[in-house]
Amino acid sequence: MALHPDRLFPADETQRGIARRLYAAVRDLPIVSPHGHTDPAWYALNEAFPDPAALFVKPDHYVFRMLYSQGVALEQLGVPRADGGPVETDPRAIWRRFAAHWHLFRGTPTKMWFEHALEDIFGVTEVLAPGNADRLYDVIAGALATPALRPRALYERFRIKAISTTDGALDDLAHHDTIRASGWAGRVLPCYRPDAVVDPEFDGFRANVAALGALTGEDTSSWSGYLAAHRKRRAHFIARGATASDHGHATARTMNLSRAEAEALFATVTTGTPTPAECDAFRGQMITEFARMSLDDGLVLQLHPGSFRNHSDMLFRRFGRDKGADIPTPTDYVRALKPLLDAVGHEAGLTIILFTLDETAYSRELAPLAGVYPALKLGPAWWFFDAPEGMRRFRELTTETAGFANTVGFNDDTRAYLSIPARHDMARRCDCAFLSRLVAEHRLSEDDAHDIAIDLAIRLAEKAYRL
Amino acid sequence: MALHPDRLFPADETQRGIARRLYAAVRDLPIVSPHGHTDPAWYALNEAFPDPAALFVKPDHYVFRMLYSQGVALEQLGVPRADGGPVETDPRAIWRRFAAHWHLFRGTPTKMWFEHALEDIFGVTEVLAPGNADRLYDVIAGALATPALRPRALYERFRIKAISTTDGALDDLAHHDTIRASGWAGRVLPCYRPDAVVDPEFDGFRANVAALGALTGEDTSSWSGYLAAHRKRRAHFIARGATASDHGHATARTMNLSRAEAEALFATVTTGTPTPAECDAFRGQMITEFARMSLDDGLVLQLHPGSFRNHSDMLFRRFGRDKGADIPTPTDYVRALKPLLDAVGHEAGLTIILFTLDETAYSRELAPLAGVYPALKLGPAWWFFDAPEGMRRFRELTTETAGFANTVGFNDDTRAYLSIPARHDMARRCDCAFLSRLVAEHRLSEDDAHDIAIDLAIRLAEKAYRL
Amino acid sequence: MALHPDRLFPADETQRGIARRLYAAVRDLPIVSPHGHTDPAWYALNEAFPDPAALFVKPDHYVFRMLYSQGVALEQLGVPRADGGPVETDPRAIWRRFAAHWHLFRGTPTKMWFEHALEDIFGVTEVLAPGNADRLYDVIAGALATPALRPRALYERFRIKAISTTDGALDDLAHHDTIRASGWAGRVLPCYRPDAVVDPEFDGFRANVAALGALTGEDTSSWSGYLAAHRKRRAHFIARGATASDHGHATARTMNLSRAEAEALFATVTTGTPTPAECDAFRGQMITEFARMSLDDGLVLQLHPGSFRNHSDMLFRRFGRDKGADIPTPTDYVRALKPLLDAVGHEAGLTIILFTLDETAYSRELAPLAGVYPALKLGPAWWFFDAPEGMRRFRELTTETAGFANTVGFNDDTRAYLSIPARHDMARRCDCAFLSRLVAEHRLSEDDAHDIAIDLAIRLAEKAYRL
Repeated sequence: MALHPDRLFPADETQRGIARRLYAAVRDLPIVSPHGHTDPAWYALNEAFPDPAALFVKPDHYVFRMLYSQGVALEQLGVPRADGGPVETDPRAIWRRFAAHWHLFRGTPTKMWFEHALEDIFGVTEVLAPGNADRLYDVIAGALATPALRPRALYERFRIKAISTTDGALDDLAHHDTIRASGWAGRVLPCYRPDAVVDPEFDGFRANVAALGALTGEDTSSWSGYLAAHRKRRAHFIARGATASDHGHATARTMNLSRAEAEALFATVTTGTPTPAECDAFRGQMITEFARMSLDDGLVLQLHPGSFRNHSDMLFRRFGRDKGADIPTPTDYVRALKPLLDAVGHEAGLTIILFTLDETAYSRELAPLAGVYPALKLGPAWWFFDAPEGMRRFRELTTETAGFANTVGFNDDTRAYLSIPARHDMARRCDCAFLSRLVAEHRLSEDDAHDIAIDLAIRLAEKAYRL
Repeated sequence: MALHPDRLFPADETQRGIARRLYAAVRDLPIVSPHGHTDPAWYALNEAFPDPAALFVKPDHYVFRMLYSQGVALEQLGVPRADGGPVETDPRAIWRRFAAHWHLFRGTPTKMWFEHALEDIFGVTEVLAPGNADRLYDVIAGALATPALRPRALYERFRIKAISTTDGALDDLAHHDTIRASGWAGRVLPCYRPDAVVDPEFDGFRANVAALGALTGEDTSSWSGYLAAHRKRRAHFIARGATASDHGHATARTMNLSRAEAEALFATVTTGTPTPAECDAFRGQMITEFARMSLDDGLVLQLHPGSFRNHSDMLFRRFGRDKGADIPTPTDYVRALKPLLDAVGHEAGLTIILFTLDETAYSRELAPLAGVYPALKLGPAWWFFDAPEGMRRFRELTTETAGFANTVGFNDDTRAYLSIPARHDMARRCDCAFLSRLVAEHRLSEDDAHDIAIDLAIRLAEKAYRL
Repeated sequence: MALHPDRLFPADETQRGIARRLYAAVRDLPIVSPHGHTDPAWYALNEAFPDPAALFVKPDHYVFRMLYSQGVALEQLGVPRADGGPVETDPRAIWRRFAAHWHLFRGTPTKMWFEHALEDIFGVTEVLAPGNADRLYDVIAGALATPALRPRALYERFRIKAISTTDGALDDLAHHDTIRASGWAGRVLPCYRPDAVVDPEFDGFRANVAALGALTGEDTSSWSGYLAAHRKRRAHFIARGATASDHGHATARTMNLSRAEAEALFATVTTGTPTPAECDAFRGQMITEFARMSLDDGLVLQLHPGSFRNHSDMLFRRFGRDKGADIPTPTDYVRALKPLLDAVGHEAGLTIILFTLDETAYSRELAPLAGVYPALKLGPAWWFFDAPEGMRRFRELTTETAGFANTVGFNDDTRAYLSIPARHDMARRCDCAFLSRLVAEHRLSEDDAHDIAIDLAIRLAEKAYRL
C-alpha cells in the first residue's frame, strides 16, 4: 500500500487533526543524526551501493534475525561466515528469499522503514512479494546505479544537517579526513567508541591496549599512560568534529576508585587473570574516567548498557558479533550509577546520555535520576524499542517525572542508510501523536505542543550533542 | 446487561468499524484449545454437571480467591478441606454467597466470561444479584439436567475442533481410551505433564519415580532407566493423540550437564538430600532432556515458569494446591534458557513455547529470544494476564520485535468448561481490537490484518501444536 | 490557558460523554485525605501563608528537583542549607527564577496542579512566564494576606471532610491538641510514623529510642518495654483521632522471629554493631509487630517501601533529607511479605495498605497478593506515579486481578496544601476516564461505573482508613 499521509497518527479525529498540525511544522526540518552506524567510507568514497541484498538484507540484523527465527539459515541470506565458509552469493537469490518471507514483518517497524524507503527513494508502492520480487529488484538495482543514489546525493536529499558515525579508538579516521579534505559541505562526525581498548573481555583487548600506546606514543602499560592515550585519541576525534563518546558496556556499573585502587585494577586486567567482576569494575571505573575527561574536553558521554551480547554460542562462533542474538537483560541504574553521579553528577556542564534495553527502568529509575541530576539526560527508545509502541511507552513513562527537557530527541542508531529519513519521520510522527493526546485531553496547550514538537525533532538533539 | 455485539472493541468509530469487519471473519471459526485443564472424564462419561455451585464457584480459583480476599471463608464456598473437615455442602447456599459478592468482579474477566456463558448457554441476560440468585440457580440447574448440556453436546455446540487436557505422567489415560473407543468424533488429546515425577520438591516425588518404573518396566533408580521410562510414557501419550508436554517449573532455569553430572544429580535428588538449588538444577536438566526427546518424538514443549506456588502456608495446609495463593515472581529467561538454547535452540524442527507471569519479560527478553531462536515461540498472555488489558499488553510488547508468527494463538488454559467459548471469543475480540488500531493508524493494511486475525484465532495454534 | 472542563478526559466523543457523566457525580463530593504531609501547625495556628515562594517553590520537591536537573542551584531557590549557609532570601527573586523555568513542567502533573490552584484560588488564568511573574506574585501575595486564604478557611473551601497529617512517634501532637481544643469543626488526624524510632539506620536512632522510653515511662532498653512504649504512643495518637500508622522502609521485607530471636536482634540494633541486613531484618520484624498491635488497636498499617533515600551524597550533606534525590528501586513483595502474611495476612479485621515505587509489581505481585489475602489492600499510584499516566497504569495493571474493592481510593500524600483540590480532582477525572473506556467498550455498565466512581472518589478511602 502507498504511504498514508496520516500514518502513525491516532484514529480519533480530534487527536488526528492536532497531530497533523504539529507534524506539519516538523516534517521538513533537517535531520540531525547524532548517533548511528553508517560507514564513513560511503561519504568519503561516494561509490554506488552494490545491490538490493547488500543494502537491505545482509547487513540488517532486524531483517535477518526475523527470517532466522522462522527457519531461514543465515547462510542463505548471504551473511558472511567467520570461517569464510560458503554462503549464498547471488544477491537476487537472497532478495527472493527476503521477499518470500516479507509477511513476517507485518506489525514491525522494519516493514514501515522499508516501505517508506521503497516509495520515497524508488517510487515503489507495491508490497514486496514473491510475485514482484524480481521486478522490484531490477527497479532498485537500476536506481542504485544512478548518481542520485550515491551517498552524498542522498545525504543532501535526506536534508541531513549533521550525522555521527561510530568509530573505534584505534580507527585512524582516514575516511573522515578524506571527507573534510574533499570540500564537500556534508557534516559527518566521528564518535569515540573505545570498547575494544576498555573492555577486558573484548577480543584482543591486550593487543588493542598495546596498539593504543603505539598509536599515541603513550606508555599504555601504565595507568597514567593509558589515560593519557585516551585523552590524545579523544583530541584526535574532536579535531575531526566529534562531540560525543559512546560506551556499549554490558551493565551500567560505575566505579570511583582511588588512584591506587584504579592502578591495581588496571594492572590486573592488563597483565593478570581478572575475574568477570573485576572486568566489570574496570569498565565501570573507565566510565567515571571518561566523564572526567569530558569535563575538560566537552565530549558528551553516551552509555548503552543492558545487552547480553552474543547470547548464542553457535551464532557467535559461526558468524561473529552483531548477528541478531544480543538479548536485553534487567539493568540496574540506581546503585550502578551512584559512584559516577557522586563524582560528577552535579556538573551542569557535563552531559551523560543514558539508554536502556530494560523498559522497567524508564519510570522507576531513569526518569527520577534524569529529573534531578544536572549531568544526566535520557536517550530515546533504543533498538528493540525504536518503534511506535516503544516510543509511546518511552514518553508515557518518562514525561511526568523528567519532562521533555531532560530527553535528547531522536537517534536513528542505524547502519541502514536508506532508512534514515523513515526512522526520523517515524519518530516525529510518534512524538506528534503523543503530544496530540496531551493537547486533546487539555493537558498541554497546542502552542506548547508545537514548541515541544520542534524541540523533539531537532533542537534537543542539537543542544544535548553540542552540534 | 445483555452481551453487546461490539464489546471489547475500541470506542473510536473508525477503529470499531475495522474491528467489526475483522471479527466477522473469525467469530465463527472452530475452537482449537491446545492447552487446558478440563477433565477427560467429562468427555468419557458424558454425565450431567452436578449443580451451579459445582460448576461455577467451587472449582474456579479466579472466583473464590476474589471472594476470599474480601473476607468470605473458603469453607463457606464449599472448597474441600484437606483434612476432610466440614465445609458448606448446600450448593444453593454457596450460590447465594457468590451472588451477594458478584459486584466484586466488576472490571475483571471473570465477569465477562460468566455473563457470556449465562447468556449464550442459559439465555440469562440479567446481572446476578441477591434478588435473582435463587431464580437463576433454578434456571441453570434445570438446564444442566438436559441432554443439551452434557459435555459432548457442549463440545459440539462450542464448535471445538480439538481440545487438550493435562495429564500426569502416571495417569493411565483410561478416560482418553474410553473416548477413543466410543466412536465419538470429538478430539480430546492428553498432554504430558510430568511435574510429579520430575520435581524433587513435589509431594511424593520418590514414590512417584518408583511408580513410573513399575508402570513402564524400566529401572527408574538409574538415570538411563528414568529417561527411558519418560520416553515410554510419552509414546503412550502420543498413541492417544498427545502433541505436547507441559512443565510447571518454578523458574525457567535450564541445564545441559554432561552425562556423568546428570547421573550424579539424579542420584542426589532420588536418594540423597538435595538442596533447593539442586532441585532447581534437576528440573532444569530435565527441560533439556525433554527437548531432546521432542526432537525424536515430536512433542511440543511448553514451559510455564514464574509462579510462587502455595504462597500461603495456611491455605496450603488447609485446602491443598491450586487454591488461589499462587503468586507470580520476577522470572529470568535470558540466562536461564541459555543452556537449553545452546543445546537445541537452533533446531527449526523443535517447538518450545514459553509462557510468563512476569510481563516485564515480554519486550525485554521473550520477544527478542523468540525473534531469533528458531525453536522458540511465545505462548499467549497467561493466567492473571488472560484478560483484555493483559492481552493488549502482550501484543503491544511483543509484536514489534517478534512479529505475529513467533506467537502461537490463544490457549484457554481453563478447567471451567462452560467458559471456553467466552474465553476464545474474548481473545479474538481483543486481537481484532489490537489489529484495528494498527489498521486505523495505517501501520498495517486491512487485508493483512484480516489474514493475521485468522492466524491468531486458529492457524497459529494448529501449526505450533501440530494439530 | 484556562482550566478546560473536559481536561483529562479521553478525546473520543463517546468516551468523553461517559466520563463527563461519571465525573458530574463525583466532582463535588467532599475530600477525604487519609494520607498526607500538611503541617498541623497550619490548622492549629491558622496563620496566613507567608509568600508565593514559600508556598509553591521552597517546600515542593517536585518543583525544585526539576529546576535543579536543568542547572538551577537549590540555593537560588531558597532551599535551606544544612550548615545554615547563605541561600536566596528574597521570595520575589525565587519566584522570578521559578517563572523563568516554568516551561520545564509542560507535560508534568506539577503544571496541572499549580495552574488549577492558580485559577481556582487566585483567579489567574494566565500561564506563568517571566513577563507576568511580578504581577502574579503580587496577586498571590495579596490574596494570601486575606482571611479567605487562611488554612482553616481553605479547609472549608476545599470541602475537606477529614485530613491526616504524618507525625513522628516522639511528636507531642500539641498542634493536634490545640485544634481539638479550639472547637473548630475541621477534622485533622495524626498518623503514627515511627521510622525514627524503628529504623536503626535513622539519624539519632538510639537517642530516639531512649526518648521514646522517657516519653512513655517504659524501659525501651528491653524488647518488651520497647513494644509497650509503641503501644502507649499509638494509644496517644488514637486518642487524638489517628486511624493509621505509616512506615517508610527501604524495602518490603518482613520477619516473624521467635521472641528470643527478636529480643536478640533488638539488642544488636540498640546496643551492638548491626549489619545493614540486620537493620533491614529489624525493620521487617517491626512491621509484623505493628500489624499485631493493629489487631488490638485497629490502626491501619501503611507500607511505603522502595525508595533509595538520599541517593546523592552531596545533596544530603548540603541540604538534608527529602530534597528530591530519592530514587525508586526494584522492590520484591512476594518473598518479602510472606512472613507477615503467614502471621496475620488472613485476618479480615486487619488492613495493610501497600504502596509501590516499582510499577512492575502492580500486575505481577501486588494485585495477585491483594486479590487473595484478606488483610491486604493496594494504595493508589504513589509519588512519581501520582499523575495521569501513572494512575492509568495503576488501574490497567491491577483491576483485572484485584478488582476495585481491593484498592483504597486516592491519597494526595502532599505537603502542598493549595494543591489538594487539584490532586483529588485529577484522580477523580483519571478514574472516570478509565471507567469511561470500560463502559465504551461494553466491559462495564454505566450504572456500575457510576457506583465505582463514587467508591474511588470517597467511599473506599473512608472504609479502608476507618474514617
